[in-house]
Amino acid sequence: MPQPTATPEPRCEARRRQILAAAAVCFAREGFHGASIAKISKAAEMSPGHIYHFFENKEAIIAALVEQKLEQSLSMVRQFERAEDVHQAMQERVDTGVNERTDLDHAALELEILAEAARNPRVAAIVQAADAAKRERLCRLLASARGTPRGDEAAATEIIMALFDGLASRAISNPTLDRAALLAPLQAALRVLS
Amino acid sequence: MPQPTATPEPRCEARRRQILAAAAVCFAREGFHGASIAKISKAAEMSPGHIYHFFENKEAIIAALVEQKLEQSLSMVRQFERAEDVHQAMQERVDTGVNERTDLDHAALELEILAEAARNPRVAAIVQAADAAKRERLCRLLASARGTPRGDEAAATEIIMALFDGLASRAISNPTLDRAALLAPLQAALRVLS
Repeated sequence: MPQPTATPEPRCEARRRQILAAAAVCFAREGFHGASIAKISKAAEMSPGHIYHFFENKEAIIAALVEQKLEQSLSMVRQFERAEDVHQAMQERVDTGVNERTDLDHAALELEILAEAARNPRVAAIVQAADAAKRERLCRLLASARGTPRGDEAAATEIIMALFDGLASRAISNPTLDRAALLAPLQAALRVLS
Repeated sequence: MPQPTATPEPRCEARRRQILAAAAVCFAREGFHGASIAKISKAAEMSPGHIYHFFENKEAIIAALVEQKLEQSLSMVRQFERAEDVHQAMQERVDTGVNERTDLDHAALELEILAEAARNPRVAAIVQAADAAKRERLCRLLASARGTPRGDEAAATEIIMALFDGLASRAISNPTLDRAALLAPLQAALRVLS
């Protein structure tokens, strides 16, 4: 009996990505409630029927966006896991992390998803499940990088996540943010935490 | 000629606060766009006319909420400025900071205001002006506490702000957040940054 293919067909996958990219822009610019399926379909240059073929509703789109971001985070963790010196690999990636997290579109989308999670239990469940998956992998990485346990691995992981999560707020709150200057103090904080 | 009174009449001030408290809850629970003046007036147990007597529109309410929060932050900075040992005073206040920033209603409101600032230039201007005022005072405090300038005062202030701003994201993303456990790593990060 033929097995279902592990990955969706390339064309389907391209269309799905196209919808997600359009929805990300709509959610960031108009908010979750302002971004109707009609607006998303216009931005994606597809019919609403096409959107519904891939996603049942807007929450399913949020779930896919959160899943996409989780995949990127887990791929980053895998890179750290494979590194000869985990601490050094983490330090070297701070630059990329700052640029990703302070990108205005990225920051707007992240804050909108969190604000929606704060009032919508279904979006909260999506965000919290992804966060738990990322947090557990990061915590295990930290424990293994430290070698000798200090007992505060979970809390230190939280503070590292707060540091990077907080960069989205900083990008929105300070339009004159000097991204390059952030590297040294961020690396110093990361050093003491990891 | 009589001078205008420096503070509003107590009764007016109480009503204004009552509106702000109701609006904060409405914005956090329904979002800036979902929270109509009609809903805010119902939550505040006042007529919409009363609300408009104090605030021209919802953005004026956001401005007052942001101003109120700025006042609280500046009052905290003044306490640090008056402390004998600024570093110790900052360390001792981390506990209060964690509890304030991870309070779910507070976090929801903060994230909603930031998400709205990301797409609404008028709200962005309000948020950014308050952030600049707070940031400059914190930066001066840090410079004075350090004594010898290291040249990274502005960037270190940003990272300290990112740390605390990020706690709102952590509260929403992780419903099992162990607040007490966060103190030690947060204090360690603050020590290396200040």
